[in-house]
Amino acid sequence: MNTSTLLKEIHEQPAALRRLIDAESEPVARLARTLKERECQYVVIAARGSSDNAARYAQYLMGAALGLPVALATPSLHTRYGARLRFEGALVIGISQSGASPDICTVIDDARRAGASTVAITNHPESPLARAAEFTILLHADVERSIAATKTYTTQLAALALLTLSMANDHAGLAILQTVPDAIEATLSLDDRMRAIAGAMADATAAVTIGRGYHYATAWEIALKLKELTYVVAEPYSAADFQHGPIALVRDDFPVILIATAGAVADDLTMLSLRLRDLGAHLTAISDVPAILEAADHPVLLPVSVEERFAPMTAVIAGQLLAFHLAHARGLDPDNPRGLRKVTETR
Amino acid sequence: MNTSTLLKEIHEQPAALRRLIDAESEPVARLARTLKERECQYVVIAARGSSDNAARYAQYLMGAALGLPVALATPSLHTRYGARLRFEGALVIGISQSGASPDICTVIDDARRAGASTVAITNHPESPLARAAEFTILLHADVERSIAATKTYTTQLAALALLTLSMANDHAGLAILQTVPDAIEATLSLDDRMRAIAGAMADATAAVTIGRGYHYATAWEIALKLKELTYVVAEPYSAADFQHGPIALVRDDFPVILIATAGAVADDLTMLSLRLRDLGAHLTAISDVPAILEAADHPVLLPVSVEERFAPMTAVIAGQLLAFHLAHARGLDPDNPRGLRKVTETR
Repeated sequence: MNTSTLLKEIHEQPAALRRLIDAESEPVARLARTLKERECQYVVIAARGSSDNAARYAQYLMGAALGLPVALATPSLHTRYGARLRFEGALVIGISQSGASPDICTVIDDARRAGASTVAITNHPESPLARAAEFTILLHADVERSIAATKTYTTQLAALALLTLSMANDHAGLAILQTVPDAIEATLSLDDRMRAIAGAMADATAAVTIGRGYHYATAWEIALKLKELTYVVAEPYSAADFQHGPIALVRDDFPVILIATAGAVADDLTMLSLRLRDLGAHLTAISDVPAILEAADHPVLLPVSVEERFAPMTAVIAGQLLAFHLAHARGLDPDNPRGLRKVTETR
Repeated sequence: MNTSTLLKEIHEQPAALRRLIDAESEPVARLARTLKERECQYVVIAARGSSDNAARYAQYLMGAALGLPVALATPSLHTRYGARLRFEGALVIGISQSGASPDICTVIDDARRAGASTVAITNHPESPLARAAEFTILLHADVERSIAATKTYTTQLAALALLTLSMANDHAGLAILQTVPDAIEATLSLDDRMRAIAGAMADATAAVTIGRGYHYATAWEIALKLKELTYVVAEPYSAADFQHGPIALVRDDFPVILIATAGAVADDLTMLSLRLRDLGAHLTAISDVPAILEAADHPVLLPVSVEERFAPMTAVIAGQLLAFHLAHARGLDPDNPRGLRKVTETR
C-alpha cells in the first residue's frame, strides 16, 4: 500500500500548495489589478471532472467576495452547436490539469475572440490551454501520475482563492491562505481513521455525498474519487437539492457522507444530519461541528478548523483518503482505475 | 395502476402544453420585446429539483439561439452567505412549480433590487415568486398533485422555449413548438414498451443516465424521476463528463440509460454507445438514431422525430413512463414516494 502513487501524491499536497502560493502570489496580485481595471461583470468557468468541482468552489468564493455571478460553461454549445456567446464584460476561466482538453480550449478561444478577459489555470505552462488564454496561473503541483486528481485539485482551489482574495484586496484572507498547507498536513493524520471507516463501508454499492455552500464542491469531488477508485455509485448533492426529491433514496443503512464545517450553513446541516439519522441512514460526517459529529455513525473530526471558505482544501483530504482505503478494502488497485486515462480529450 | 394520479398527470401533458402555448404566446411575445430593448448580457436561473433541470435546458437553448451565457444560481450564496451579487445587465429567471420556495424568491428579490430584469416561471399566479418578479410566465398545467413533477416540467421547458424563440424572432421555431403537444401525445404510446423494460430492470440498485447538449437536461430529469419513484440510485451525466472519471463505474450489466436524438451530438453518442457496449453495460437507449438503437439491449424508438432543441419535451416522456412502471415492478407506490412532500421549502 505504501508504494501507491496515489497515496504518495495525496501526501504531496502541503508541499504543492506551498510552491503555488510562493510562486504565484505576486503575479496573481498583478493579474488581479488588471482584471479589476477591466470591471468584469460576471465570470464563466470552463472545466471537466475534478476541475469542474474546483469551478463549483469558485461559484461561492467569487460570489461572496466579489459579488460576481459565476456560470459553469457548457462546452458542447461551442464545439457542437456552433453557438457564438456574447461574453461582453465576462471574465472567462479555463481550468484543466493537463491543459489539453480540446473543448475547454475552444471555450477560451471563443471567449478571447469575443473580447472577454481569459485566464488559464493549469499544471502545464506549455499546454494548449495556457497558450489560448491571455493570462495563466500555474499550479506548481509537479507531475501528477495518478489518474485520480488530488494535488492538482487542491492547488486549483488555492489558485482560485489566490485570485479571488487578491481581486478583493483581502489581505487577512491571503494571510489565512498561507496557513492552509499546514492544515492539510494535519488533516493527513486522519489516514488510520479513514482506513477503519473504509473497512466498514467495504460492501457498499451506492452512496450519496452532501455538502452546502463552499462544501458543495467537496461533496462533488469526494463522490468523483469514490466513483473513479472504488466504483461505488456515489452521487453528490447540495443539502437543499437533496431534500427536493433524492432524500427518497434514504433507507436503513444507506451510506451518506456529509461534509459540513463551522460556518453559515452549519445549522442547516445539523438539522439534516438529525433527519438522516431518523431515516436510518448510515452517516459518515467529515466535520468540526460537535452536533453533526454526534449524529454520525462514523464521526470524522477534522484536526484543524479553518475558516469556512478555506475548509474545502482540508475536508477533501479526508475523502481522498477514504476513497484510497476503500479501493483497497474492495480489492481494487487505486493506481489503475478501470476504463480511465489520465488525459481525457473530449470535444 | 390506472387510478394512479401520476399516470393521469403524465397523460395530461399534451393538453397542458396546448393551454400554455395558447394562453402565453402573446404575452410572452410582448415580454420578449421588452427584454430585447433592455439588451441583457447574460442570464441567471434560480431553481431546485425538476425546475433546475428545466434551467439546464435553457443553458443550451438560450446559448444557441440568443448567444447568452446562462448561469445556474447558487441560492445559498444569497440566503446563507449574504452575498450581494451585481447582476448588472442580467436577466434573472426564477422557476418553481409552486412559486413557494423561499430561497428562489430571495434570489429574485436580490436581483430585482440590483436592477436586473426578473421573470418568474410558475404554475401559481398568486405565489410569492410571481409577486417577487417583475414579469411572470404561467404554466397553465392545472393543479399537479403528484409529488414527482411531470406536466409542470414539460410546460417549464415549453415556457422557456416560447420566451427564447420569441426573443430570437424565430417564427419557424415557434411554429414547430406548436406541434410538440402532438409529438408528446404520440410518445405516450411507448407505455407498454417502457413497462416491459421496467420489468427487466426491476432488480437494479444503481444506474446512470447520459445525455449531451439539449438532452443533458433530459438525463438529469429522468435520473430524478428514478430516484424519487424507484429509489434506484440513478446519476445523470453529460457524455463528456462521464468519460472524465465515472465511466470507471461501468462493468458487466451495469444499467445505463442513454438519451440521444438526431442532431449535433448524435455522432458523439453513437461512439459512446459502442464503447459502453464493449464495456458490458446494460444499455437502454431512448433515441431516433438507428446506430444508437442497434447498440442497445433495450432500444426505445421515439415514435415522432422532432428537431433536436424540442426533443427534450418528448424524450423525457419515455423516462417518466419508465420510472412509473419501475416503481410498480419494485412493489412501490408512485403516488407516495418515501420522505417527500410536494412543496419543499428550502432556505
